[in-house]
Amino acid sequence: MEAQVITIRRDVLAEAKASASIQREHFTRCGTLVVNLVSSPGAGKTSLLEATARSMTGRYRLAVLVGDLETDRDAQRLAPLVPVAQLSTGGACHLELPLVQRGLKALGNPELDFLFIENVGNLVCPASHDLAEHVRVVLLSTTEGDDKPGKYPKMFRTSHALVITKLDLLPYVPFSLAAAAEDARRIQPAMEVMSACALDGRGIDRWCEYLVERRQQLLSMEPDRACR
Amino acid sequence: MEAQVITIRRDVLAEAKASASIQREHFTRCGTLVVNLVSSPGAGKTSLLEATARSMTGRYRLAVLVGDLETDRDAQRLAPLVPVAQLSTGGACHLELPLVQRGLKALGNPELDFLFIENVGNLVCPASHDLAEHVRVVLLSTTEGDDKPGKYPKMFRTSHALVITKLDLLPYVPFSLAAAAEDARRIQPAMEVMSACALDGRGIDRWCEYLVERRQQLLSMEPDRACR
Repeated sequence: MEAQVITIRRDVLAEAKASASIQREHFTRCGTLVVNLVSSPGAGKTSLLEATARSMTGRYRLAVLVGDLETDRDAQRLAPLVPVAQLSTGGACHLELPLVQRGLKALGNPELDFLFIENVGNLVCPASHDLAEHVRVVLLSTTEGDDKPGKYPKMFRTSHALVITKLDLLPYVPFSLAAAAEDARRIQPAMEVMSACALDGRGIDRWCEYLVERRQQLLSMEPDRACR
Repeated sequence: MEAQVITIRRDVLAEAKASASIQREHFTRCGTLVVNLVSSPGAGKTSLLEATARSMTGRYRLAVLVGDLETDRDAQRLAPLVPVAQLSTGGACHLELPLVQRGLKALGNPELDFLFIENVGNLVCPASHDLAEHVRVVLLSTTEGDDKPGKYPKMFRTSHALVITKLDLLPYVPFSLAAAAEDARRIQPAMEVMSACALDGRGIDRWCEYLVERRQQLLSMEPDRACR
């Protein structure tokens, strides 16, 4: 009986993986860079997206899908700045691709340069779920401590970039930027490490440059774009 | 096939619930108050336990079981202060009772006044697992934002006390103690709300008093104690 249950799980995972690949290819053909933001609760995902929207709106077409167990508090914050849909997981600790697809449909499947997915605040569960993103970005705030990469290795191993947030609080907390970067690169040697403060704007230009560069790479991979 | 799988899950959960009740009754007979500490990663569980151990050691018999996905970084910090066993979940986002029982055995099943269980840093998964604790305490740091109770309702609903940590950073962050307390009590009206700073010691006396009061209640419930 147990072996059959395991087989069912494997089929489901393989199916989810195939769906994510197909969806990612569609985003690539459309020239939409998809960014999945993951972190602990309160690390500053919504604040980083507010700063990003302020910097990039007008120059690029953006939208945000924001995941939470309950409430639409994050979507309410972002709505004045950028098209946003709230994805409510109803208690689940991570987003899954079908919910992302429903969110896009709710926004009218717009043509986008960047789609940001703000995952549920959790350093464990979202690591295992491919949302068809091109770039997974993990945020770590200076107030959480520089020992977190080694303690949550799967999340850091599966991420392409690390943004160290709340740089304004660095003088008041025991946190070493070098130690955090070293711990993260021990787990993921290719990790792009940046730091930022959404409140005073430090690091936001570099972060937006990084996003634009990643999109340029995407466009160069698919010179004959055919969206829809 | 699917219905059978659901039946198996239910049995497992019922069995886990029964085990937790038996284990909790044992702790009660021994006069051991068991405290399960839950929070986001980096909210300050280990720092609060360091301060607690410094305050209570000598007057009470304490031990700590500390859960992490990987590494023994937290146990290394606590080991100079208090008997401690590291529980490695090997990737799971929460502790379960059998691991707690193995940790106690590894410590030699000592007679204790207080057993602290530091759960994996996660505001979702640990909410569903009874570790035979008498008191579940959720920590929320001032740097995470005062909007978290409503966003993680199950964790706050199943907790008896809320400790707002990192009080020293309050002047630098947009966080209202009153708003956080109100949001938490909307979800759990009986919530005991405290605040503390492990670094400068503020609130630690009140927190230790709370623990001693809860243990007195336990002892008065079981006047004829017969441990082992």
